[in-house]
This record gives sequence, structure tokens and C-alpha cells, in this order.
Amino acid sequence: MAISRPIVTLTTDFGVGSRYVGAMKGAMLSVNPHLSIVDLTHAIPQGDVRQGAIALDETAVWYPRGTTHVAVIDPGVGTERRILYAEIAGQQFVAPDNGLLSCLAERAWPTRMFVVENREYWLPSSSSTFHGRDIMGPVGAHLAGGLEPSLLGPPTNDLVILPLPEAQRVGQTIVGEVIEVDSFGNLITNITEEMLAEVPRDESVRIVCDDHETFGIFDTYGAQPPMTLIALIGSGKKLELAIVSESAAMMLGVGVGAKVSVLP
Amino acid sequence: MAISRPIVTLTTDFGVGSRYVGAMKGAMLSVNPHLSIVDLTHAIPQGDVRQGAIALDETAVWYPRGTTHVAVIDPGVGTERRILYAEIAGQQFVAPDNGLLSCLAERAWPTRMFVVENREYWLPSSSSTFHGRDIMGPVGAHLAGGLEPSLLGPPTNDLVILPLPEAQRVGQTIVGEVIEVDSFGNLITNITEEMLAEVPRDESVRIVCDDHETFGIFDTYGAQPPMTLIALIGSGKKLELAIVSESAAMMLGVGVGAKVSVLP
Amino acid sequence: MAISRPIVTLTTDFGVGSRYVGAMKGAMLSVNPHLSIVDLTHAIPQGDVRQGAIALDETAVWYPRGTTHVAVIDPGVGTERRILYAEIAGQQFVAPDNGLLSCLAERAWPTRMFVVENREYWLPSSSSTFHGRDIMGPVGAHLAGGLEPSLLGPPTNDLVILPLPEAQRVGQTIVGEVIEVDSFGNLITNITEEMLAEVPRDESVRIVCDDHETFGIFDTYGAQPPMTLIALIGSGKKLELAIVSESAAMMLGVGVGAKVSVLP
Repeated sequence: MAISRPIVTLTTDFGVGSRYVGAMKGAMLSVNPHLSIVDLTHAIPQGDVRQGAIALDETAVWYPRGTTHVAVIDPGVGTERRILYAEIAGQQFVAPDNGLLSCLAERAWPTRMFVVENREYWLPSSSSTFHGRDIMGPVGAHLAGGLEPSLLGPPTNDLVILPLPEAQRVGQTIVGEVIEVDSFGNLITNITEEMLAEVPRDESVRIVCDDHETFGIFDTYGAQPPMTLIALIGSGKKLELAIVSESAAMMLGVGVGAKVSVLP
Repeated sequence: MAISRPIVTLTTDFGVGSRYVGAMKGAMLSVNPHLSIVDLTHAIPQGDVRQGAIALDETAVWYPRGTTHVAVIDPGVGTERRILYAEIAGQQFVAPDNGLLSCLAERAWPTRMFVVENREYWLPSSSSTFHGRDIMGPVGAHLAGGLEPSLLGPPTNDLVILPLPEAQRVGQTIVGEVIEVDSFGNLITNITEEMLAEVPRDESVRIVCDDHETFGIFDTYGAQPPMTLIALIGSGKKLELAIVSESAAMMLGVGVGAKVSVLP
Repeated sequence: MAISRPIVTLTTDFGVGSRYVGAMKGAMLSVNPHLSIVDLTHAIPQGDVRQGAIALDETAVWYPRGTTHVAVIDPGVGTERRILYAEIAGQQFVAPDNGLLSCLAERAWPTRMFVVENREYWLPSSSSTFHGRDIMGPVGAHLAGGLEPSLLGPPTNDLVILPLPEAQRVGQTIVGEVIEVDSFGNLITNITEEMLAEVPRDESVRIVCDDHETFGIFDTYGAQPPMTLIALIGSGKKLELAIVSESAAMMLGVGVGAKVSVLP
């Protein structure tokens, strides 16, 4: 599974610009100075495992096979929650077992999992408040360098799955909700392109979010003039509501959890 | 044009910490895992092609010859706008043809340009809303790996140039405007060091911005005490207004477009 | 002191997403395209040398021996302040001599120091407002590539030390203060784990910050339910006050300088 310059990605809720990211990278480079460490994102809201699970699932897929992904949204750090290694679609993941791997695992169940218990691959003196720096980062660095994952600890077959809301059909109507607000303020829903396969794209279809509505499902943002509320299939193949050139979340006052209906 | 570890830079309006940056890097590393990907900035205001053009021009020049720069401020993604390859001063640029290369091209016209049309170097299934991940990133990764640019598509000789305000002389007075607010809140104008060549630097010269004024053009911020409004030639060789140790933009309530006059 | 892929870290107050970081990296890669440049943090408050000194001290220690750290919080840029090279615990530091190396130097006095004066290792034409890009970055790049530090300029034995508040014992009570607010809003104090060695950890001990109080010193955040004010020994081995899953700084309205007492 090795590639010539080992790539490790980081996904955390430490906050963009946090010195904790800098410390974690240092601990990893101390294990293996040849790593190519890439930030997936550090802007997951503090402790929001669900948003982390979504971001990880949407983003990891774009990386080459053999990539190691370390994800640390870990409100239970230092408590009884386990730390897991999981192998999914030819990539390696290290994360707390709190649901952070839910979306990935639902798409493709891990081919191998191990509980991260062997202290040989941790920092010598591990804190109880920063397992990203002391355990998960170093373990990821060892894995990227070619460590056989079964050395990390005992195998396991289960992991915590977070219940994620699924869109439903109610008669002709498809009812879903906003599951993510992206960095442009676009509202990403759990209504997939597949569910919309039979739905017309023209202006006969009505999309309702809270007390806002728009007609038609378009191909791209530029299809409508600035300041228009528009529905489209976003880059993650899910229905998305956007206000062209603005933040829909801010202008509509809408966030994660808002109901969205598609009425053909 | 190859250098031993191929460097690709990214300039976007995705927002600092956006997972879209993470996805784009993944798509690029899937093309070429050896890339050294460097962030120029992801903090360009959403859709603000002019600010992107300025940032790219001010920053790319510091990179070695042979660097590949991918720039994605692309409000017209998925519409008819073209995607361009341009070679400028020994560096390679990939960007939408919407004016993003304006400032660079005005400084030194591209020696070669091609329209990015050959799908062979794109992701296999390209979305219509995220050409950074699906087209421009992968094309940049191929180029950095040594791809002959003429394989990207047909040659072209024109590109969109955004009209940028130029400072003027009105009698003895030089009249310009704020074209950028930097990350410290300093107000960067379009009045160049060259235009100020004949202007005295001592306190006989008066600089006016909106209803604020200051006297003298100094060498550096530390030349005046904290909280002082100061004029100086900034690191991009343009006249800059700053409030020492504070944000001039916030404290003066002034932004891009504000008129600035120099009265010798 | 060379390692195979030379690592250079950056610590600045340029702001996350600042194009000045992009320019500085370009100038460094122009000196040595093989560098692995890692961001420690760019979120130090503008001109706050003390916060920079703390962040650098807390973070650099996690990097491998031989790492080069370039730190630019430099409100005095272009004035008479010196630029220093310092060797501390097998790592190399380049920074303005304004106190930025204080915390590091107090922990372990530099084994060698040189004043950065030899223009041979600077950019050819250096501005007076951006020594990160024009001097310190390029010098760091040369050092990481193996430059003998004594070539940078004359040796020196002194550097500016910022007075940092130290926690005190007043009878049984330990009195300190908040010295940093981290990216989670946790309040990090100058009361070290060592000072608390004799203090019980159970709920008999009372911790007071402003007009807020909490009982007991815990191991980790998850030891208490969300929204609880909790005291613990943080990952930097200092007493820390946190509100579980929230920002203590925001919720308590408390920041750097607030007094904290531990009453056994």
C-alpha cells in the first residue's frame, strides 16, 4: 500500500490556524520526516463529529489509494472511547471510535479494523487531553511509513455508527434536510442525485426550504443571475441550495437541520 | 521547465479551512503524488476576480521559474467561459479566462497560451460546479509533472483583461485609490513607487484618504508610534496607508475603492 | 544537523490565509525548492510578541532535531532591532530580536547565536517592511539546506527577554494568571504541573478565576458533562480552565491576564 512520498491527511476541529495543528505535525514528522502532510480541513465546528464524518467522506475519496487519513474530532479524548484503525477502499484511517468514520463505513465497510492499543507507536509519554499529537498523529505517521496495521492492536469488527438523517419519499414529494453548510454558505442536503433521477429539471419542479422556494434544478451557479436562490446538484452529487454570489445560509438564516422538500 | 520537486501553488476563494481545498489537493495528488502543493491564499473574497488577480500578481513573482500556479476564482464555473493555460515569465498558470490573469499579463504578456479543452487530463467524470477539483487542479498536476502544454488544447492569443483603476496626475497632485486591504488591515493603493519618484518624502507632502490625512512618506511601520496613521511604500512597491499596530481599514472605516490623493 | 527532507516551520502574525505567507514561501522555495515548509501558526494576534513566544515554545519542541524554525512577529520591522539566529536544543531558529525567543531561551539557553547581517543570504533587494519574505525566510531556507550558521554574521551572547508573569505561592494558595487563550477558547495559565505536585486533585481543591470557581483538577475534558467549567492539566503541562464543549473565554468573558488562584 506504500506510495513513494507517503501522504497523510489531517481532519480536525482544532480551528484554522491553531498551534495544535502545528504541534501534531511536529510529532508526526518526528516519527517520519519524509511525510507529505496535507490539511483536509481544520474548520470542523468544535466537537461536531457528524460534520467531521461528512467532510471526511466527501474528501478522502479524492486521494490516491494508500493515503493515510488521520481524523481528530474527539470530544471524548482521554475517556473510554477506543481509537480505531480502519482500511476502507484501499486507504488507511485513524480516528476515535465515536462515529467519525460513519459515512465512510456506510459507503464501503472497512476491510480490516484494529483497535489502536500498542503504545510502541505512540509518543513515549502520552497526555490525556491531546491524543491527536500523542497517539493518532504518530500512529498515522508510522502507518504511512509502511507499518503493518495488525501491529497496532487487536482486530475488531464493529465501530460506532452515527445515525444520519436520510431523505424520504412521501408520495411524489422528496423530503430531506440540510446536512452541511459549505465554506460559501451553500446549503448541502441529504437528497442525492439518484433520488432525483426521475424528477424533471425544468421549472415545473418546486424546491422548498423553510419558507423559501425556488423552481428548477440547474447545472451550475452561473445559470442564474447574482442574488438568485438556485437549486442544483453540487459537486458531491447531492441537492444543494445556493444564492448566486452570496451565502445562502446567511441570507436565508438557514442552517444544518432545515427541512428541504422537492415537489415535482 | 521541470524542477526536481514539482511545486504547484493554489489561489482560490474557497475560504480558509474549506474542505474543497482538501478535495482539490486530493485530486491533484491522485494525478501526481510527488507534488509539493503550496497555498498562495484561499482568502480571496467569494467571486472577487479582481482581488484574486492582484494577489496572484503580487505573490507568484516570488516563486522559482518553472512553478505551476493554479488559480480558481470562478463564479462562471460550468458556463461558457474558457479555461486557459498561460506561460508568463517562465512560470505556468492555469485559470478561468475571466480576468484572473489580468495583472500578470499586463506586467508581462504570456509567451504561450492554450485553451484547456483536452479531457484526457481532466478527472474522468467532471462535475459542472467544481472545475478546480475536476479540471484545473488535475491539469496543473499534469503540467507540474512535465506535460507539454500544447497538448492541453488549441493555442490562443487573447485573454480577458479586467479594467483596473490607474492612478492619475492632476496638476501636482497624484490621485489614486485603495485597491486592496491586506491581512493586517493596511490600505494598499494603486499609486506606485515610480509615480512618487519626484515627490518629497518629508512632512511637506500631504496624503489624503476620504476625510483622513497624514503627512510624510515613511520607510516602515515602526517609524511612528502605535495608533498613528502613516503612509509608506509597502512591500509591493505601492503607496500604503496603515495605522501602526492596528487595522487602518477598521479604524478609518475605509475599504477598496476609497480615493487617495498625494499633494506634494 | 541536516535531515533528508529539510523541514522549515513558519510562525507569524500575518493572519490565516494572508497572501504574505504565500509570498514568503515563494521566496524560500526560490532559495531551495526541496524544502518541506510547515505552518506552525499564522494566527498570532498582530504584533503580539508574547503570544508568539509562547506558541513557538509550546510547538517547536515536537519537531525533530535539525528542524529550522522561522518566526516573524515583527512590529519593529525596518527599525534598529536585530535579527537573530539561535540554536536551541538541536534546532535552528531565525527571528527578530524582540523577545520572540524568550520562552524557548528560558527553557534552554541557545548554544550558539549569530546576528543576521550578511546580505549574501537575503533577497537581492530587500524591502524595509517585509523582512519575513526578504531576509528571515530566505535565511531559514539557506540554513535548512545546510548553510553553516556562523556565515550569517557576528556571534552574540545576548537576546531580548520579555518579562513573563510567573505564578506565585502565597501561603497555601497558588496565584497565577491566564497567559493564552487557545483555539478552543480554553484558558491556559502559567501554573505548571510541577507547582501543583502537592495539591490534591479531588474536589477539595478550589480554583478561582475572576468571579468564577470550580472544584477539583481533572484528567481530561470528557470527565465532566458539556457546559461545565472544569480545571485540568492541559497538553502543555499547565493548569487550564475549560468549559466542556464550549469556549471558556467567550462564556466567562475572560482573557489573557485574568488572575487564577488554586486554593487547596
